[in-house]
Amino acid sequence: MKTTYKQNLLTITLACAVAFTAFIAQADEVLPSWNDGSAKKTIVEFVSKVTTPGSPDFVPVPERIATFDNDGTLWCEQPMYFQLIFALDRVKALAPSHPEWKTKEPFASLLKGDVRGALAGGERAIGEIVMATHAGMTTAEFEKLVKDWLATAKHPIYQKPYTDCVYQPMLELLAYLRANGFKTFIVSGGGIEFMRPWTEQVYGIPPEQVVGSSIKTKYEMRDGQPVLVRLPEVNFIDDKAGKPVGINQHIGRRPIAAFGNSDGDQQMLEYAQGGSGARLLMLVHHDDQAREFEYGAKSHIGTFSQELMTEAKAKDWNVISMKEDWKQIFPSKK
Amino acid sequence: MKTTYKQNLLTITLACAVAFTAFIAQADEVLPSWNDGSAKKTIVEFVSKVTTPGSPDFVPVPERIATFDNDGTLWCEQPMYFQLIFALDRVKALAPSHPEWKTKEPFASLLKGDVRGALAGGERAIGEIVMATHAGMTTAEFEKLVKDWLATAKHPIYQKPYTDCVYQPMLELLAYLRANGFKTFIVSGGGIEFMRPWTEQVYGIPPEQVVGSSIKTKYEMRDGQPVLVRLPEVNFIDDKAGKPVGINQHIGRRPIAAFGNSDGDQQMLEYAQGGSGARLLMLVHHDDQAREFEYGAKSHIGTFSQELMTEAKAKDWNVISMKEDWKQIFPSKK
Repeated sequence: MKTTYKQNLLTITLACAVAFTAFIAQADEVLPSWNDGSAKKTIVEFVSKVTTPGSPDFVPVPERIATFDNDGTLWCEQPMYFQLIFALDRVKALAPSHPEWKTKEPFASLLKGDVRGALAGGERAIGEIVMATHAGMTTAEFEKLVKDWLATAKHPIYQKPYTDCVYQPMLELLAYLRANGFKTFIVSGGGIEFMRPWTEQVYGIPPEQVVGSSIKTKYEMRDGQPVLVRLPEVNFIDDKAGKPVGINQHIGRRPIAAFGNSDGDQQMLEYAQGGSGARLLMLVHHDDQAREFEYGAKSHIGTFSQELMTEAKAKDWNVISMKEDWKQIFPSKK
Repeated sequence: MKTTYKQNLLTITLACAVAFTAFIAQADEVLPSWNDGSAKKTIVEFVSKVTTPGSPDFVPVPERIATFDNDGTLWCEQPMYFQLIFALDRVKALAPSHPEWKTKEPFASLLKGDVRGALAGGERAIGEIVMATHAGMTTAEFEKLVKDWLATAKHPIYQKPYTDCVYQPMLELLAYLRANGFKTFIVSGGGIEFMRPWTEQVYGIPPEQVVGSSIKTKYEMRDGQPVLVRLPEVNFIDDKAGKPVGINQHIGRRPIAAFGNSDGDQQMLEYAQGGSGARLLMLVHHDDQAREFEYGAKSHIGTFSQELMTEAKAKDWNVISMKEDWKQIFPSKK
């Protein structure tokens, strides 16, 4: 036990040193990519009051739960959800072993490069594409497909890996909250298994803190190895009224801070606000055509409707203007 | 910011001091309620090798995931599952507003005190009892029912609160693993919402690290307040082949250590063992009639069948004898 004792002591010492260093670095400049304005001020004041012992708004560390939507909140979602681009790339890769797709929609249109035509079939078409590309393999095989795709695919406009198309101010916000004792969770309409392979490295959010949509899995032995097989059957849709359900199912506590960017996040923010005590509720507004995209109510995805804007005002939610509040959109090149 | 800075610094300093103190205390005597024997030796050796940097079996902290069954593994499950006792008590409490139960099974037998007769209806009868007592209220209301029951109900034999009928050696094991960088999870066939109200206080396991069976919930606004309503519909059964599914759904990583006590845990241990690297796989065997219960294959719950014992031997899982390996079963009176 002696060696272990010394080495564990070293580990604790190092961890503490890292905590202090991170803390001191953070204190020098909080949220450096955020302009001084009401959004940054709201965040810093909220964190200050819930972490100050003796404050009427003090929240014990275990209850400092913050939930973040992913598409359009932590990373870009245009020109379409990245997971859909992954699915379309999978269709192309799988096409040689599916000759029937040449004449079968939505695959036929897709293979001709007509994405709009393929998606004209609506949810049913998307469902068929998702099941054809996301089911029928083990969870480990699917994880590898996602990792391999992310390692090579590039965003069609920015020409950089999708995992570089994350918002620098939100990375800083995640780190700032964690440095103040928060546990950060993703609560996304996207696929839980599509996010988990990379969220720890990119956002510092481990797999067990990712909540998302899912298909069913089945446990079985294959060649004496225990595996989980992904079935072509929806398990859970983590969007709109599904978000509070997913939060309760996975986290079992009401968040005290919640961040979204679209109508799909409204119920998550409502639910977080429904608890007692101080709350931080924010919506990222895509209003920066020059540096990213300006869409709001105009897009078929990530819709920030006029109704949501009205609700945000009525409920005192804070709308983050990407144009006004963010100095920088994406991380600088390493 | 100055006050917050100082206070956060104080928080970090205190946290580090606590970590050091806990670590030093732990080094003095590891697992004090465990007799020196193969079970304790297996645990300590496993923890040593996965936490020693440079060891071929070293596992980084984020991957140190340990999963524990609850009923019969962390707390007692006799004379019947405590959650079933809770349900029976709820039936009695609700009976005045359900006059039809006087002639309707399984309720009629229950209200006459004939539990065996009520449960003769098998899974269907249990399902009816569970839905009548666990659904139809909000998640917050159900949490209050559980807390109120635990605050007053007493174990029929031990005559103490159910939350005192937990196994002292397992409390020490949970703390020992956490002191060595493990994240401890419950993975139980019991109801997730029946466990969450008390697992943090009793086991040090927060709600977000509890995986269990569940019924569906629905998000809605009641009098302007956002609530989740519990529906009389099964969502997920976290038992047998469901345990690896639940682990993947909630945790998204394969555990490196797993602890159970019955046939319902076999697939969880298999699944944990299926990963590469060192593994710790243990089964609590109820063989202590004098201090707790001796049941094994003989019980209708918590069955430890001969097949499981054969499997454990074949796969090199470690069987913990409560009689031989544990100095003490329950925590000493405070």
